[in-house]
Amino acid sequence: MDSSRLTGQVRIVGAGLLGTSIGLALRAKGVDVVLADASMANVHLAADYGAGRPAASGDVPELIVVAVPPDVTAAVVGAELHNHPAALVIDVASVKSQPLEQLRRGGADVARYLGTHPMAGRERGGAVAARADLFIGRPWVVAAHSLTAAAQLGLVEDLILDLGATPVELSPEEHDRAVALISHVPQLVATLTAARLVEAPIEAVSLAGQGLRDVTRIAASDPELWQQILGANATPVVRILRGLRDDLDTVITSLDDLAVPGARRALAEQLAAGNAGVARIPGKHGLKAAYTSVTVKVDDRPGELARLMAEVGSIGVNIEDLRLEHSPGALIGLAEVGVLPEKAAMLTTELLARGWRIAG
Amino acid sequence: MDSSRLTGQVRIVGAGLLGTSIGLALRAKGVDVVLADASMANVHLAADYGAGRPAASGDVPELIVVAVPPDVTAAVVGAELHNHPAALVIDVASVKSQPLEQLRRGGADVARYLGTHPMAGRERGGAVAARADLFIGRPWVVAAHSLTAAAQLGLVEDLILDLGATPVELSPEEHDRAVALISHVPQLVATLTAARLVEAPIEAVSLAGQGLRDVTRIAASDPELWQQILGANATPVVRILRGLRDDLDTVITSLDDLAVPGARRALAEQLAAGNAGVARIPGKHGLKAAYTSVTVKVDDRPGELARLMAEVGSIGVNIEDLRLEHSPGALIGLAEVGVLPEKAAMLTTELLARGWRIAG
Repeated sequence: MDSSRLTGQVRIVGAGLLGTSIGLALRAKGVDVVLADASMANVHLAADYGAGRPAASGDVPELIVVAVPPDVTAAVVGAELHNHPAALVIDVASVKSQPLEQLRRGGADVARYLGTHPMAGRERGGAVAARADLFIGRPWVVAAHSLTAAAQLGLVEDLILDLGATPVELSPEEHDRAVALISHVPQLVATLTAARLVEAPIEAVSLAGQGLRDVTRIAASDPELWQQILGANATPVVRILRGLRDDLDTVITSLDDLAVPGARRALAEQLAAGNAGVARIPGKHGLKAAYTSVTVKVDDRPGELARLMAEVGSIGVNIEDLRLEHSPGALIGLAEVGVLPEKAAMLTTELLARGWRIAG
Repeated sequence: MDSSRLTGQVRIVGAGLLGTSIGLALRAKGVDVVLADASMANVHLAADYGAGRPAASGDVPELIVVAVPPDVTAAVVGAELHNHPAALVIDVASVKSQPLEQLRRGGADVARYLGTHPMAGRERGGAVAARADLFIGRPWVVAAHSLTAAAQLGLVEDLILDLGATPVELSPEEHDRAVALISHVPQLVATLTAARLVEAPIEAVSLAGQGLRDVTRIAASDPELWQQILGANATPVVRILRGLRDDLDTVITSLDDLAVPGARRALAEQLAAGNAGVARIPGKHGLKAAYTSVTVKVDDRPGELARLMAEVGSIGVNIEDLRLEHSPGALIGLAEVGVLPEKAAMLTTELLARGWRIAG
């Protein structure tokens, strides 16, 4: 068991995906974790998972993590500040300005409140989807405000580092503009695109490929939760949506009459801007597109993939990423092996020398 | 070598991704394939790959497949109809009404032309990305018109079945409306969303997670090609974009003042419509989500993945799909092993018994 940076007791309020995952990871480091939730059934489920023990009278938390839905975050944080006058209370909700403002208006002791937001999640929610490694390698925003003390920042950074995440300091306003851009607007765009499919002939929808699936995947998210998130971050979201609508109008005008001078150029410029934008997104898990893939043809029978993996290992190359493409009815699969760029040529040569077939 | 349904010679014009992939698959079935391209270098590359032999005088193709960029498709089809008066000429371009109309206006013998569109592709283009299995399990639209004869349909279906794809009959107009919905509008939506990132602070873009990456992935596509595709299918695309813009305006109005009665309901309804739309998309490869995943924790060092694969093989379970999640700085990776549902519980039990750690 690795030792933890945190030394005091941690109280987690809300035993859903995030709260339970935090509890699991802290317990694995030996931290004393107590659990609370509006539902005792949720508390017992999370405790059974190993995320901590049910809270009891006599608990004295040093740090309280509020992990409840956005629309009750401020109220729950306020109650925790009141009931635990010595503890630092943080939340993990996906907007940061609104809860702080609500707490201030409610007269809470905001000097003991600090807003945070782990950039991690899963499509499935609830304690059953919790994972101790949910936060590993992910950014975790800490949104300090004017009354935040250095010692409090230190405590929260200990939590974040214990969970394997990387602290990122942003103001509440910077955070909210950032998540509007990288999370809330993409959510709405996926939703609006998927909504076009509702009335479409099924023969048309049946032609869908990976492109449509990728664009619309997150449209399957919980509408109740997202109505709360979007409502709590409306101003930055609307500002970005207005820019998007202006560009959409330009595209519609261009396509409406391509004979107008400049119409095709406007369309091409918009497509090029999309290229430029997507190129700014860092690779998976915050890395730059760091790996080169070597695609190997693998016979579709038990043991073949193992033989390939063993061969790569014996060549002395570490597999950084791996994906198997499997075409039903085909006699081969394609294993895309991601390796450090400087290893790719050597690996290709060595695999070819050992009789493997390299695709592409 | 499986025997082919096609018996005559096939001429492929355009040795890019689609043309070369068709050639590779047909050659594997023993079909006589001859290759032509505006660039002889492309022809020789595709021939070296095994996609056929360079076309020569004396060739008598029964079927000609034109696989060239959209804006030259009609001209190339017209020339092929003229130069090969006994052959059936098909194209594989991603719009179907415009080439037919252009050929009719040009006085071509459209009775010998049939438009088709394989719903398959890759992010990488060119002969080097070609794969014989590119079309396996994918829909392939056949857009017959008023002069199409049954024997011609039969010949094209033989081609499609030889390539492992599934023929889908749609009119040119039905096809163009369908691809506007499932391909062209999603492309533009990804582009418009990615374009928002161009001027954003890098700290904001650095917080990106899988959701943004998925929504914007196809925005990396070739602007020149997409300007042609969108221009050739402008009318159905604009119709869908107008509906999307109306919904976008509704969202902006709702978020702009959530206190207005009905504003939150309008937002929730839009999110629910997104849920309903995405639920209509069939699973990968048109299969129902056929595999169950077992997620195994794997130490991040050479050989570990091989050991896991070997263990799975020795348990007698075939790996249908595989994905490695690798967090930089973490000591473990997560191997998601996709297996037939009836094998998952047994595999989990056996792996646990052999000391593997199962996640989730």
